[in-house]
Amino acid sequence: MCQLLGMNCNVPTDIVFSFTGFSTRGGRTGEHADGWGIAFFEGAGVRHFVDYESAVASPVAELIKRYPIKSKNVIAHIRKATQGRIALENCHPFVRELWGRYWVFAHNGDLKDFAPALDGAFRRVGTTDSEYAFCYLLQQLRRRFGDTSPELPELAVALRELCAEIAAHGTFNIMLSDGRALFAHCSTNLHYIVRQHPFATAQLSDEDMKVNFADVTTPNDRVAVIVTEPLTKNETWTAFGAGEMIVFVEGAPVAL
Amino acid sequence: MCQLLGMNCNVPTDIVFSFTGFSTRGGRTGEHADGWGIAFFEGAGVRHFVDYESAVASPVAELIKRYPIKSKNVIAHIRKATQGRIALENCHPFVRELWGRYWVFAHNGDLKDFAPALDGAFRRVGTTDSEYAFCYLLQQLRRRFGDTSPELPELAVALRELCAEIAAHGTFNIMLSDGRALFAHCSTNLHYIVRQHPFATAQLSDEDMKVNFADVTTPNDRVAVIVTEPLTKNETWTAFGAGEMIVFVEGAPVAL
Repeated sequence: MCQLLGMNCNVPTDIVFSFTGFSTRGGRTGEHADGWGIAFFEGAGVRHFVDYESAVASPVAELIKRYPIKSKNVIAHIRKATQGRIALENCHPFVRELWGRYWVFAHNGDLKDFAPALDGAFRRVGTTDSEYAFCYLLQQLRRRFGDTSPELPELAVALRELCAEIAAHGTFNIMLSDGRALFAHCSTNLHYIVRQHPFATAQLSDEDMKVNFADVTTPNDRVAVIVTEPLTKNETWTAFGAGEMIVFVEGAPVAL
Repeated sequence: MCQLLGMNCNVPTDIVFSFTGFSTRGGRTGEHADGWGIAFFEGAGVRHFVDYESAVASPVAELIKRYPIKSKNVIAHIRKATQGRIALENCHPFVRELWGRYWVFAHNGDLKDFAPALDGAFRRVGTTDSEYAFCYLLQQLRRRFGDTSPELPELAVALRELCAEIAAHGTFNIMLSDGRALFAHCSTNLHYIVRQHPFATAQLSDEDMKVNFADVTTPNDRVAVIVTEPLTKNETWTAFGAGEMIVFVEGAPVAL
């Protein structure tokens, strides 16, 4: 199994603190040493880093921890290979373009007997069930909405249905973003926290590192962090329900 | 105008030497300081780095110069903005998936009155004529060959026709790769060199740096480097003709 980390904010924020704790699980405090990846939206663009080395050993992960890339939507993944060999093309997150926007996707879990027809609009490059599911999701969105992106409420309805359909084949904890919203669907294990004014100090579970968010934020900042297992030991994280999909916009869950 | 750098090899090779000279033109010996990018194929996967900082100032470029990523196909670009503002989504190279493979594209030059209809299969995320041309190229390839990748000779014929069609709208120096071959089309300015046994020492034009390739290669290695302006001052580079497209496979031009 793999682990997922996502961040959705109302102002561009760096993910150095959360990624430092999270990436430690990629080979040191966790067994997820079969590659990792992270994607940051910056405006309409995406910075995409993937590596088949463990996140602990990777020089690219070292760069991410040192270089505070600011983003409103981030998705990261550390991999424990179950389907698909250890190779760059099998590292999450995956990126595709739909409706003139980039879409970023990462998945934790296994799917069984999942083999819907792909019409060729989106095809997987690697050999994972995860990339297959991503291609299917985008294909179905385009079939449903044609060449024009729907508004967020219609998109959320469609994604809820599609996630439920795919999750019937196994475990489908995912994060998906088009740079405007972050969609998180839970089959078995996902938690989130919203940090906002008044900010406090947080202490990582996986590293001896803490940060006082009051020192690095303004009172208007709002940041949602979504992760497989809580990253800090002195904050209260909310567990997703099984089958629940939450849409995060501007740093908070929205009812859609 | 921008500058392009490509590498195509018969064994995975690092591009540190060439990229060091090339990236110096991104803000120090050249005026191309409006962003840069590089993409490396590794198997079917792609490592894709883009930045809107100049290649001289970028911490990501610093990583590339220090961390020898080995690849058989690399495309890099430094940008002097002409169309499209300075933003991450306008940095080359661009990446899309077609026929279950990633395609990487970078362009130097301007296109005028280039506005063919896009059917939605590939749509640009940014605002450059370059990304527009890339989307059009891939769309036309899929229209022509359907859902299955043709063999290389048929692909080369199609790309030659498409490049000529687009180049009629202005300057279209490009590099394109699907990880198997590197296609380079020249309107105005492109040079290449093939390095193979017996290897010699090369001296960069833009930096006080030289390397004896005999020390870092085996006799079977073959590396083609393609670039806007020659990178070394003691080697003989071959200039492309106007309107010429050359296909590089396994480190050498092939007649297709």
